[in-house]
Amino acid sequence: MEVKLDREYKNIRVIGFDADDTLWINEIYFREAEALIGQLLSCYETQNKIEQELYKVEIKNLSTYGYGIKGFILSMIEVALDISNYEVSNKTIEKILNIGKQMLNKPVELLENVERVLTLLSENYKLIVATKGDLLDQERKLEKSGLLKYFHHIEVLSDKKEENYMKLLKHLEIEPEHFLMIGNSLKSDVLPLVNIKSNAIHIPFHTTWEHEIVKEEEKRNKKYRTLNNLEAALELLI
Amino acid sequence: MEVKLDREYKNIRVIGFDADDTLWINEIYFREAEALIGQLLSCYETQNKIEQELYKVEIKNLSTYGYGIKGFILSMIEVALDISNYEVSNKTIEKILNIGKQMLNKPVELLENVERVLTLLSENYKLIVATKGDLLDQERKLEKSGLLKYFHHIEVLSDKKEENYMKLLKHLEIEPEHFLMIGNSLKSDVLPLVNIKSNAIHIPFHTTWEHEIVKEEEKRNKKYRTLNNLEAALELLI
Repeated sequence: MEVKLDREYKNIRVIGFDADDTLWINEIYFREAEALIGQLLSCYETQNKIEQELYKVEIKNLSTYGYGIKGFILSMIEVALDISNYEVSNKTIEKILNIGKQMLNKPVELLENVERVLTLLSENYKLIVATKGDLLDQERKLEKSGLLKYFHHIEVLSDKKEENYMKLLKHLEIEPEHFLMIGNSLKSDVLPLVNIKSNAIHIPFHTTWEHEIVKEEEKRNKKYRTLNNLEAALELLI
Repeated sequence: MEVKLDREYKNIRVIGFDADDTLWINEIYFREAEALIGQLLSCYETQNKIEQELYKVEIKNLSTYGYGIKGFILSMIEVALDISNYEVSNKTIEKILNIGKQMLNKPVELLENVERVLTLLSENYKLIVATKGDLLDQERKLEKSGLLKYFHHIEVLSDKKEENYMKLLKHLEIEPEHFLMIGNSLKSDVLPLVNIKSNAIHIPFHTTWEHEIVKEEEKRNKKYRTLNNLEAALELLI
């Protein structure tokens, strides 16, 4: 294949992909779960108030539980106890547990053109996945996705801060200037890379968890590109 | 330091350590949690029956939740609902959630002589950690342990079967015959290594989770050593 690289990316040798909401749908399942749980608890509070409470409890528990569905469900049970003033029924708690299990067992629904993009990019670059969350859950989704064959390495990180990326690049012996990260979260997939003099492309997903939203001043003067979808990256990289 | 290697281990270059109950105390905290929860539910069932139920539910949920404290607590809540016939109080569920948080925030208590053994072995071998469980929880414990400086690599695995070890050794470019795994679980730290023609030393811990117990016939004719404690490994390796 003829390579006509955008000058900007001529040094790139390895491309890292976020997984949730970059390769496949994810955040929507959390929103759906919140809506279901909102209905279950609707006799105690409004949907809006329940979601606010959940967010507060999730952030409070983040350093203890980390990211992922299991921590989400544990926080959700805590909210149910609290918001009902300890009156929520055992059956409702069981339903919350079952919503968690359903989330963990969801099929993987790839975003548009993911396979085409990975096929083409894998001919020219080494591809890796860098995702955060529950280890088993992320491994299982990659397995189900059928995408494993495109990737040289899968890394599940407990967080996606600058030091996590620096450690990963060092471990894989990749220079920051040779690496490009592609993902939907400015906070987790883009800004940490820009800050360590690596490269990033932002592909927003229509739903973003509040915790991943970045203030305007944090974005200012940061060098990264925003694209509408994965396919648009092909024009820049191949 | 003079090296007078046992012939058996003369090819070893890299030593892998399990973490929970090999480097530090872990299983005891699960037993303590089970005892506490047994007391909380003692109006519904005997301690023995509650533990049996918990084990059944944990195994049923293992493929969904994976290993670790968060899955343990989610299973524990499921057992509380079930064993109380949906009559357990919200306050008890809150106490179960809090037992989980306390487990996740426990200090790390190293087993005897761990630092001395790692110091001496790290002068002669590359050391790595290969542990399973929740990613964040294991990383946090390693951080708290003060042992990170001894290790070239930390791998948190979603499971410890033959294929997991083969992938890890391949990724780290280690030949099976150059690797020795040391751990307390025959099922997870010893037999998979023996089966892929690598090496393993078993150092039993006085408490073993039922799921990790191996049948007599699985051990028969398997080539591995059993030692009383980590320090005994020094004599074979240095």
